[in-house]
Amino acid sequence: MRVAFQGEPGAYSEAAALEMLGDVETVACQAFDDVFAKVASGEVDRGVVPIENSLGGSIHRNYDLLLRNDLHIVQEHYFRVRHCLIALAGVTKADIHRVYSHPQGLAQCEAYLDQFPGIERIQTYDTAGSVKMLAEEGRRDTAAIASRLAAQIFGLEVIEEGIEDDTENYTRFLTLSREPEPAAEPAKTSIVFATSNIPGALFRALAAFSLRDIDLAKIESRPLKGQKWQYVFYLDFLGRHDSPPGSLALSQLAETASMLRVLGTYTQG
Amino acid sequence: MRVAFQGEPGAYSEAAALEMLGDVETVACQAFDDVFAKVASGEVDRGVVPIENSLGGSIHRNYDLLLRNDLHIVQEHYFRVRHCLIALAGVTKADIHRVYSHPQGLAQCEAYLDQFPGIERIQTYDTAGSVKMLAEEGRRDTAAIASRLAAQIFGLEVIEEGIEDDTENYTRFLTLSREPEPAAEPAKTSIVFATSNIPGALFRALAAFSLRDIDLAKIESRPLKGQKWQYVFYLDFLGRHDSPPGSLALSQLAETASMLRVLGTYTQG
Repeated sequence: MRVAFQGEPGAYSEAAALEMLGDVETVACQAFDDVFAKVASGEVDRGVVPIENSLGGSIHRNYDLLLRNDLHIVQEHYFRVRHCLIALAGVTKADIHRVYSHPQGLAQCEAYLDQFPGIERIQTYDTAGSVKMLAEEGRRDTAAIASRLAAQIFGLEVIEEGIEDDTENYTRFLTLSREPEPAAEPAKTSIVFATSNIPGALFRALAAFSLRDIDLAKIESRPLKGQKWQYVFYLDFLGRHDSPPGSLALSQLAETASMLRVLGTYTQG
Repeated sequence: MRVAFQGEPGAYSEAAALEMLGDVETVACQAFDDVFAKVASGEVDRGVVPIENSLGGSIHRNYDLLLRNDLHIVQEHYFRVRHCLIALAGVTKADIHRVYSHPQGLAQCEAYLDQFPGIERIQTYDTAGSVKMLAEEGRRDTAAIASRLAAQIFGLEVIEEGIEDDTENYTRFLTLSREPEPAAEPAKTSIVFATSNIPGALFRALAAFSLRDIDLAKIESRPLKGQKWQYVFYLDFLGRHDSPPGSLALSQLAETASMLRVLGTYTQG
């Protein structure tokens, strides 16, 4: 199975793809658009993309691409971002006076790095790219912060794992496919819908779920720019789109929504 | 007036602060935490932080900091991110064979950059930092993509402005203060509240607004990690927290919410 992800080899997206799908062949893509395009064209079997994270929120870009491409969500997975301190073989913590990483990697390990007095923090464009740089330079006074996978790919060693200050740093990833797949229980369904913001439009929309005791797992509004008071909503509910009560709730929602798209029913992750 | 922002001098946050507050003294901070701390301690008069953007969604980190610090939102502003092609004085488009920017800056100008055949795209850690680098190197074959402000700060020239492919690229910024300020009409109020996810808890919470014909401008759920089925909601509504019907809706919401915080009432931006 060939699986596309966005980023450099060793990026956290690649680590997530391997954690989700096991021993698959990964295909690095420069942009999210390329991931969707490769799945749509059949060049790869699956695509793995992040959809939201605990620090940065929903990745609207990928919701837009879900609306634009006729793909199905077939899997979700909460991936714990575990930063590693990475260096050349034999380097110890006492040797380290410089560290490379993406600004977010450095920021997320700030308290950890304070144990190295006077350490020079050097910002780079990419976590996995930092490891590549370090491997090329061969410096023994420098470490990088990135994934364990990046260390493996570029032949460096993990000195310490899980060095992030906030252990609640996770990202939700989705697996995308051209065809739907059967989902096990408990199942979750993701939809996107639009309403006009006549007062109470959302309230009526949610009634479709509430009146049937359907649990919501996510609700998020996004204003449509250039169309004041027009909103798109991202909603996840527990249940299936093609059997009751989910199917009945969707029928009722369709009566008032100006747009409704089912992105997929999949096993809850 | 002294105003703190996060980022390097010339960052888009600084440009937004100047657009929002006029001719103020800006104070660059390394982290969002520092912006909040400087406002709380009185070291600066205001802080300006991004809270959501049209591509990346809500910045949960800043919602967390709003909950942790007792500050007030006194202003909102939708800032259009306008990327500029920046180079040394006298450099023309024909001279340019390389370009520096943050990966997002490069990605957002991809179609524009295609007019330069074979241009080398070099990723850096920061848009404003690219301009600083270019100014130090003095290369005449290279341009940077960043804000007009960054060009002014580092003494370079703007060859072309508004080169982003997607002209709907905007970020919503908030101004924070220790004390609330009077808001003009139309007023908007931001709140954060939590509910247990007994089916319909959100439905009941929204009823407080819907039954009073109060328009919602934003609703977003965020699962509380480690507390399955406990949610925090970010909600903006049109109206005030301290006069009807907003005050009445908040009283009703308080009856069922496990937590409720008013972040501020301010003029709609």
